Amino acid sequence: MSYKISIVGASGYTGGELMRWALLHPQMEIAQVTSERFAGTPVTKLNPNLRGFTQAEFVSSKQLNTDVDTLFLCLPHKVSAPFVKQYIDTGVKIIDLSADFRLHNPKTYEHYYQPHPCPELLPRAVYGLPELHREAIKKTQLVSGIGCLASSVILACAPLVKAGLIDPSRIIADSKIGSSAGGAAFDISTHHPERQGTVRAYKPTGHRHTAEMEQELNEILAANGQAANASVGFSPHAVEMVRGILSTIHAPVSRPLTDLDVWKAYRSFYSGSPFIRLVKDKGTLFKYPEVKPVVGTNFADIGFELDADHPRIVVMSAIDNLIRGSAGPAIQCFNLMHNLDEKTGLWVPGYHPI
Amino acid sequence: MSYKISIVGASGYTGGELMRWALLHPQMEIAQVTSERFAGTPVTKLNPNLRGFTQAEFVSSKQLNTDVDTLFLCLPHKVSAPFVKQYIDTGVKIIDLSADFRLHNPKTYEHYYQPHPCPELLPRAVYGLPELHREAIKKTQLVSGIGCLASSVILACAPLVKAGLIDPSRIIADSKIGSSAGGAAFDISTHHPERQGTVRAYKPTGHRHTAEMEQELNEILAANGQAANASVGFSPHAVEMVRGILSTIHAPVSRPLTDLDVWKAYRSFYSGSPFIRLVKDKGTLFKYPEVKPVVGTNFADIGFELDADHPRIVVMSAIDNLIRGSAGPAIQCFNLMHNLDEKTGLWVPGYHPI
Amino acid sequence: MSYKISIVGASGYTGGELMRWALLHPQMEIAQVTSERFAGTPVTKLNPNLRGFTQAEFVSSKQLNTDVDTLFLCLPHKVSAPFVKQYIDTGVKIIDLSADFRLHNPKTYEHYYQPHPCPELLPRAVYGLPELHREAIKKTQLVSGIGCLASSVILACAPLVKAGLIDPSRIIADSKIGSSAGGAAFDISTHHPERQGTVRAYKPTGHRHTAEMEQELNEILAANGQAANASVGFSPHAVEMVRGILSTIHAPVSRPLTDLDVWKAYRSFYSGSPFIRLVKDKGTLFKYPEVKPVVGTNFADIGFELDADHPRIVVMSAIDNLIRGSAGPAIQCFNLMHNLDEKTGLWVPGYHPI
Amino acid sequence: MSYKISIVGASGYTGGELMRWALLHPQMEIAQVTSERFAGTPVTKLNPNLRGFTQAEFVSSKQLNTDVDTLFLCLPHKVSAPFVKQYIDTGVKIIDLSADFRLHNPKTYEHYYQPHPCPELLPRAVYGLPELHREAIKKTQLVSGIGCLASSVILACAPLVKAGLIDPSRIIADSKIGSSAGGAAFDISTHHPERQGTVRAYKPTGHRHTAEMEQELNEILAANGQAANASVGFSPHAVEMVRGILSTIHAPVSRPLTDLDVWKAYRSFYSGSPFIRLVKDKGTLFKYPEVKPVVGTNFADIGFELDADHPRIVVMSAIDNLIRGSAGPAIQCFNLMHNLDEKTGLWVPGYHPI
Repeated sequence: MSYKISIVGASGYTGGELMRWALLHPQMEIAQVTSERFAGTPVTKLNPNLRGFTQAEFVSSKQLNTDVDTLFLCLPHKVSAPFVKQYIDTGVKIIDLSADFRLHNPKTYEHYYQPHPCPELLPRAVYGLPELHREAIKKTQLVSGIGCLASSVILACAPLVKAGLIDPSRIIADSKIGSSAGGAAFDISTHHPERQGTVRAYKPTGHRHTAEMEQELNEILAANGQAANASVGFSPHAVEMVRGILSTIHAPVSRPLTDLDVWKAYRSFYSGSPFIRLVKDKGTLFKYPEVKPVVGTNFADIGFELDADHPRIVVMSAIDNLIRGSAGPAIQCFNLMHNLDEKTGLWVPGYHPI
Repeated sequence: MSYKISIVGASGYTGGELMRWALLHPQMEIAQVTSERFAGTPVTKLNPNLRGFTQAEFVSSKQLNTDVDTLFLCLPHKVSAPFVKQYIDTGVKIIDLSADFRLHNPKTYEHYYQPHPCPELLPRAVYGLPELHREAIKKTQLVSGIGCLASSVILACAPLVKAGLIDPSRIIADSKIGSSAGGAAFDISTHHPERQGTVRAYKPTGHRHTAEMEQELNEILAANGQAANASVGFSPHAVEMVRGILSTIHAPVSRPLTDLDVWKAYRSFYSGSPFIRLVKDKGTLFKYPEVKPVVGTNFADIGFELDADHPRIVVMSAIDNLIRGSAGPAIQCFNLMHNLDEKTGLWVPGYHPI
Repeated sequence: MSYKISIVGASGYTGGELMRWALLHPQMEIAQVTSERFAGTPVTKLNPNLRGFTQAEFVSSKQLNTDVDTLFLCLPHKVSAPFVKQYIDTGVKIIDLSADFRLHNPKTYEHYYQPHPCPELLPRAVYGLPELHREAIKKTQLVSGIGCLASSVILACAPLVKAGLIDPSRIIADSKIGSSAGGAAFDISTHHPERQGTVRAYKPTGHRHTAEMEQELNEILAANGQAANASVGFSPHAVEMVRGILSTIHAPVSRPLTDLDVWKAYRSFYSGSPFIRLVKDKGTLFKYPEVKPVVGTNFADIGFELDADHPRIVVMSAIDNLIRGSAGPAIQCFNLMHNLDEKTGLWVPGYHPI
Repeated sequence: MSYKISIVGASGYTGGELMRWALLHPQMEIAQVTSERFAGTPVTKLNPNLRGFTQAEFVSSKQLNTDVDTLFLCLPHKVSAPFVKQYIDTGVKIIDLSADFRLHNPKTYEHYYQPHPCPELLPRAVYGLPELHREAIKKTQLVSGIGCLASSVILACAPLVKAGLIDPSRIIADSKIGSSAGGAAFDISTHHPERQGTVRAYKPTGHRHTAEMEQELNEILAANGQAANASVGFSPHAVEMVRGILSTIHAPVSRPLTDLDVWKAYRSFYSGSPFIRLVKDKGTLFKYPEVKPVVGTNFADIGFELDADHPRIVVMSAIDNLIRGSAGPAIQCFNLMHNLDEKTGLWVPGYHPI
């Protein structure tokens, strides 16, 4: 059995990635892919990788047929929320990859973005990270996307916060990210001679994804009956790669820890989460998580090291920003919302070397 | 139904790639993967991408169990031939990715390599390029691998030679190739500070793959009843990428040509060849073949331009050296040898951007 | 003693490069640097490398003070010619880096660009490649710039054409070039996710620099009393680097040659040319010219290999496109026009590794 | 007037870099460059960038002539100390780029390296960072080199510690470094297919340079009469570049700060230090320090951002690891030890773009 889906705002990198996985998914059928700017253009003109896999053309969202099972929205924030408002009462399932439904608190949204266009819908949305909200996702009609950087940090920290192993109020997250995270729009900052080989702290403070990190960690603290004092000093860096995020989390340990303490926390938290791989291959080149083995996949590779000389744990979390940081969990959510195996259509390894 | 296979000499990049595709293939079951140096080591220690997909360990080839359907050999040339000799009479199907059975003429082999260890077996081998030898591959017990660079040039030139559109005696092939082509062994030439960002003509004349190119084009000429005068001035260049080959072929045209003449030659030659994509997307960034849309796939993207000011055609041919240039056709051959659809286990698109 | 210079159209990469070298030149003093778009902006805002070396701001060309010794023009073609026309009769020396005065024949210019705005000035310009036109440059008021790709090919071929060692009518030049050659203007083709790691034959036929190559080689043939039948099948490729060009020339040899024949031709031609380095370091990683050792310098490294199996010579020519392919020879010309040592202000080695 | 120098252990990247700058220095004359492995080999065989600039050959250190003014030692740690011991009483000035004389406390040295071979010499060495120890360097006979990563962090933190603006006991330093830092020796970790495009936390805890950072910051605290409680949680990452370090320092602020507070601290500390450039070019792409504008130079570019939502300052410090992190300060020290202008032979800008 196949479910009809449409992808709205499909001409960007996230839309293209979603299309790729949807074409391969055994239980999805793409009804429409929309783009105002490229209406009438074959999708392979923008996605040369899909030559031979589809003859589809972009259509205008004005021609959107809502008689589908699920809508995936890849629209910019602020544009997406009114769209959700327009369609949610048709009963269609909506997976909105924009930032509009990630934050539960409209004031936080306003602090980092702008006044929320439809705050009344916020309570209906579930934050679309299956490893934290699997059961809620199964039951909801509206799932938010996740921030790619946010998710890499949340996945690294959540088990440690849950187990009380770190001080949540003094977390530092230093992320390194590839150029595709900026999307298909270009300017001088992505001009190859300027972007190639750089290490650029493009937003060392005040990055919007901080809000998602703190929200999700605070929910865990609250569930633990602890003060919701999560504070993440977050600084992302553009580095030389197209795809990928490595987030390095430096967190003060709550007490002297052993490796075993930490392993237990991760194993327990991620039991039943097939897309988390815990990595500590001592004695090999790949002893810690790296970006390259997860490129092209929905895996998050997570590893750590305890600092023998300082009261600190260093956690490393590696993902493909366009897949695990965006399209992948959206499809995990789709699978969960339709009672399919969470792995359906996503269970592929990466390449080595790449 | 599943066929048991083993991969001999599996610790290199080609072996790792073959393992990856074999794990995903719906009708292959991996019996053993061998390595002398890494016997006893889990394959994921060398192939971090396969974490979660296999628990296998390398075994010594001394423990090779030949009670399998097909042996894939990823051994160095000269080592591979005696191995084939040892096993061929057991009736096992052999796909030998080394250079030992690519050249039919032992003198040519000797010119480019060394005296052939078992020339008497050469007539039993079929050159493993399905697009040229599909029917012979279906019937043989022994298939050779192909040179990655050679195949990218052969696929670009064969239809033009077949159709008599170019002068086969004055072909120039200038290839650009990624670092993975050199394999997992390292030296100063692959040391990152020396290799990164370089453009290095590492073997501007006398490259061994020239022999494969000239052999295959000469066979086409001979089949046409023409003089077997194929001559390819071939110069490969190391450029900054890990995976991929772009071969640019500069060939004198036999007579004034139109685009349509050339299209007809390619379409006719590659009718029934699903892994060849002809590319000429005018008006887009991707108007010619490029490496990035084929990385991670078994596709060869081929395109061309006629030179309005000079009697020359320029053909561009893009492949992933480890897949389309090596492991991919080996699996195409496996499929053909077992009457499976040639696309089985190989029909996946690439990523964009990557 | 110092000469006052101004740089017109200085906000692009060539202008920035010229500024850098002018700041270091012991006998140049920068009077003004102009830009319409950035008038009033400190040059370090666009050239962060120059922080600490200059406080200058761009001024509008409307404020250009022509009471200087030399004007360097870094304007687009078609814009530059009228500018030259306006100023040449003031007696100021002009080094015009645009394409407007490179081609002597206005019909050739029209074929590759557009009708020439002031063909009457063409006879007054000298093609600004000192290694070919040193004496004429010393005496002229108007020097043209050179095409970066053109110069890399001309320098490789000129000695062989002069000595009659190759067939000039069947030269193939396959160049690999970095992204800075496209300048500071950006579009989707230079967007990092699309440009990074690619090998893109962006103009496989009909590239404008072909005209310069054929003009300069034909002049040599004419001087030899030979037919001016130079024909260069030229195809440039964008590869992954910011700076640099490696041109690979495949040329049919006129007769069987020895290495010594070729060395003699190069040594004789480039006697007295300090910026040409002939390379053949057998037994080292750097046996042929590569881009990395010339990045940041005005050197052209040239080497070759004779093909033992085909009647072909392969010549490799490596330069930094922004220096040796543009700003460097402009400064060599400045030096020559002022009776300074040609090396003044340019005699620095590159970095290793880089 | 020229001073004779020799470089011992000159075949590595630091030695090559030092040689390059020494060749350009107006008051240095290279007497000998030694290498056991490459004795008899022209230095240009390893340093193709120096073709045309030197005919020198490596000699064995057994042939070392100590009748020079200054010895630069580029030997591995543990090898260097006995060498210093052997030569120091000849009165020759020694600049030892190894780690052997960086740490004053032999126990700290032993914790991070091994028992010190000649602890009695430690009090005679000055840590070779001119911005912190200018006066002591002028008077000493023995200067140590500096850790490249260490220096990038120390330069970023010292003014803030000195001014009491941050809590020195909870500094996090997350560095990103290019592949040349590992030197000319290669293994699987620097094999291009494995190293290219990676982000690898190769030593997330316990890195040796931590000791230098804490020593130097503690000295400042002690001079302030404060507790010497500097603690740096340091984690370096290999990223895709050949040259360069960007260190991101995340430090808790001691009290609410304004930009002006921080500027004052930096300006005051680095008054008279020409190679420190303070960067905050708001409104441009280059608003913070980046690696590319310092590649090829002795500059350290330093900038910062105060976090409006968290009690944290983020400092970014960019250097060229082989120059500013190694050979450059060694030459600054040489200049200071000979009463030359500190900038002599080092005052060159970088390139843009590169």
